[in-house]
Amino acid sequence: MEKAEIGLIGLGVMGSNLALNIAENGHPIAVFNRTTSRTGTFFEAAGDLRKMIVPCTTLAELADAIKPPRPVIIMVQAGQPVDEQIAALREVLSAGDIIIDAGNANFRDTIRRFSELDGSGLTFIGMGVSGGEEGARHGPSIMVGGTEDSYKRVEKILIDISAKFEGEPCAAWLGTGGAGHFVKTIHNGIEYADMQMIAEIYGVLRDGLGMKPKEIGAVFAEWNKGRLNSYLIEITATVLAADDLDTGKPIVEMILDRAGQKGTGKWSVIEAQTLGVSATAIEAAVSARILSSLKDERLAAEKAYGTGGVSKFSGNRDKVLHDLELALFAGKIAAYAQGFAVMDAASKQFGWNLPMPTIAKIWRAGCIIRSQFLGTLADAFEKSGALANLLMAPAFIEMMKEAHPSLRRIVAQAAEAGLPTPALSSALAYFDSYRQGRGTSNLIQAQRDYFGAHGFERIDAPGAHHGPWAGGG
Amino acid sequence: MEKAEIGLIGLGVMGSNLALNIAENGHPIAVFNRTTSRTGTFFEAAGDLRKMIVPCTTLAELADAIKPPRPVIIMVQAGQPVDEQIAALREVLSAGDIIIDAGNANFRDTIRRFSELDGSGLTFIGMGVSGGEEGARHGPSIMVGGTEDSYKRVEKILIDISAKFEGEPCAAWLGTGGAGHFVKTIHNGIEYADMQMIAEIYGVLRDGLGMKPKEIGAVFAEWNKGRLNSYLIEITATVLAADDLDTGKPIVEMILDRAGQKGTGKWSVIEAQTLGVSATAIEAAVSARILSSLKDERLAAEKAYGTGGVSKFSGNRDKVLHDLELALFAGKIAAYAQGFAVMDAASKQFGWNLPMPTIAKIWRAGCIIRSQFLGTLADAFEKSGALANLLMAPAFIEMMKEAHPSLRRIVAQAAEAGLPTPALSSALAYFDSYRQGRGTSNLIQAQRDYFGAHGFERIDAPGAHHGPWAGGG
Repeated sequence: MEKAEIGLIGLGVMGSNLALNIAENGHPIAVFNRTTSRTGTFFEAAGDLRKMIVPCTTLAELADAIKPPRPVIIMVQAGQPVDEQIAALREVLSAGDIIIDAGNANFRDTIRRFSELDGSGLTFIGMGVSGGEEGARHGPSIMVGGTEDSYKRVEKILIDISAKFEGEPCAAWLGTGGAGHFVKTIHNGIEYADMQMIAEIYGVLRDGLGMKPKEIGAVFAEWNKGRLNSYLIEITATVLAADDLDTGKPIVEMILDRAGQKGTGKWSVIEAQTLGVSATAIEAAVSARILSSLKDERLAAEKAYGTGGVSKFSGNRDKVLHDLELALFAGKIAAYAQGFAVMDAASKQFGWNLPMPTIAKIWRAGCIIRSQFLGTLADAFEKSGALANLLMAPAFIEMMKEAHPSLRRIVAQAAEAGLPTPALSSALAYFDSYRQGRGTSNLIQAQRDYFGAHGFERIDAPGAHHGPWAGGG
Repeated sequence: MEKAEIGLIGLGVMGSNLALNIAENGHPIAVFNRTTSRTGTFFEAAGDLRKMIVPCTTLAELADAIKPPRPVIIMVQAGQPVDEQIAALREVLSAGDIIIDAGNANFRDTIRRFSELDGSGLTFIGMGVSGGEEGARHGPSIMVGGTEDSYKRVEKILIDISAKFEGEPCAAWLGTGGAGHFVKTIHNGIEYADMQMIAEIYGVLRDGLGMKPKEIGAVFAEWNKGRLNSYLIEITATVLAADDLDTGKPIVEMILDRAGQKGTGKWSVIEAQTLGVSATAIEAAVSARILSSLKDERLAAEKAYGTGGVSKFSGNRDKVLHDLELALFAGKIAAYAQGFAVMDAASKQFGWNLPMPTIAKIWRAGCIIRSQFLGTLADAFEKSGALANLLMAPAFIEMMKEAHPSLRRIVAQAAEAGLPTPALSSALAYFDSYRQGRGTSNLIQAQRDYFGAHGFERIDAPGAHHGPWAGGG
């Protein structure tokens, strides 16, 4: 076999699938895994693709198997393991080679690694890959950060293995340094919000309307034909319809309501705060997972307070279902507006010049949040050029005008019924705050000036002013 | 004059007032300011207290004026200026001296500075001071972090200058390293939530009930006699009653609705997220200030969407006012529960063993969030010992049971009326999520297992499991 075009380190589920995807697309690949038995198992299972794969038992072998200048993908656990792999790779790679971290790295680590390799002759790419196992195997969404030049050298492979949306590849260079991993982080933050809002709507259907999993699944399946059409709605319908093989009961009823998380949601919130951007729907989603983990506390609190609120979920069921569909849609719009606002701020802060329409486009297929909605979003960004906020794109004004009355009805009814809607109500508060020309922070400024002499702006004169209490506060 | 007992660097408003407070309490103090003319002005204005004050024009003079071992308070802008002052002080201080940073430092900087002074013979105290100008002058709340031994050496002065609640001083040693500044940060985070919820209620009174500032002020003045009795409610009544000296109009109507912030709110949110604790009401408050700053965007959005929602605020006015009072109280309970949960997690993480009842006690007077409520809170912590969450203290269960129905009615009506209540609705969602024994994260776990093979826990068996879709997801 000719030399491999690319290498890959880390044959976990994501790494294995990515390697098979690369091989299947006609790019010979050399692979390595620290536990070498895993390399053997992987190779055995690769079937016909074996002819495109070079299994290696040492990094030196890996380097030797790839045609220079070598691109090498690292797909190991984020954090320290990545640094260890980079250190080990530096021993065997040569000037011009590219190290590509395809894991869920914190973009600040990516920026650091980028600069640590500066002057070494090696270059670094931080690459966000979304789409889960399935995406990795048959076409993920790929978000690349690094120099444009280094991207060009691996572009062909990345385009070939990426998901396609109506023929357009879902892989793109987004900016220098940490741009790719930052966008992937925000993608995941939005994913948290999407999933949490779906869970809140599920909660209203289950506890407010008393529906069974299969009935609820059918509702989501129906919604998947309309404006909510997306991978997450589709799989929501699928998992709600699935039965547990052991008990024969609906599987969702056998699953403990304690959600895990791996850090990208938390990072989204921390970066939003650091950048001074409101991302409350994403925060609420991360927070909901935190509270879900306190199962014992929640059981004790339910015992102390009772469950449910002071009224039942009321109204004509069809009307409520219609409201729920539109509420979820309105909440989604607000969450995406927040996510894109965070990326916009980061783009300015880090000088990335992030291409927003491209980001929306490469999320249309392959990734977990892929949806019809992202097509609309890409169009909006292409048509509008720079937007202060997604909520100001003409197409979104129309959609939001139609949907927000439903969102407020659902938030109101859920509040009365005692059903938690943290992300949906945050989305509503965000929208209502954003479209309130005259807010209430004048009172906060008065308080701050009173107790701390912080000063305030006036509506009728420039500069900083103090209240009549000045000096006596 | 005998030598000074203590030194102070930085004669801004807070530093000047703290120095006068120390002098007035009988402790001779040496003072220094980088711009030395300020030192002169300060000294001239000190009147009778001049006999207790030694104005110094160099740091060497300052060191010479204080009796060793010397405590020296730094009250300069947080960040780099503190590091510069410490570096300069190291040139003139001797073994055994104590540097006390009384500014609003990030506790992570405090921990770093603490360790940077390790081995230098000097010790470091990070001290949170709350109460604004007035508190600094006549009695602030003082939160001390450092070694207990170093605290003991300045305890007398700090106790003397602190606020007193029914005779009990509002100053205490809270733990090692960054404990004092961390607690001060969370104090401020809670203050953000308190102020934001007051602003939201003000918004309902103004825009939902159409009341004028003085009428609204009268409502807050009335509430200040009851369970909401607190400094912030008191000054809300005061500022709402105040007229602008220039126009004769109510001053709040002349103040621009664009709120400032100085970092502690943001830090609260970032640390809550880093610790994995839900602090959504604080997050919502910080976010509300962020959105308030986007005045031009908000005006454009109002133009696009119109203001207000789909219905009017309805109901009997007395009933609504009663609901508003209880809603604010319920929201406050949830926000404090979040703040104390963050401190509890930090206490464990950093090994501080924070004394929660003491924290509540030293917040009863002097600081911005001082209130009757904090007395109840201190009692609850003293009676209950370790609490999983403030919401589980018997006294709070009773109060919350009475108040949460009002909170949900207000959140529901505000949602319908299009009035933003980001912090109040986050507080409600937090409460409803916390007391929901069976949540909705089972669906999220099903989705995560479907697309990422993350596995889930079952309700009927230990260990990690996969759904019937395993391998086919």
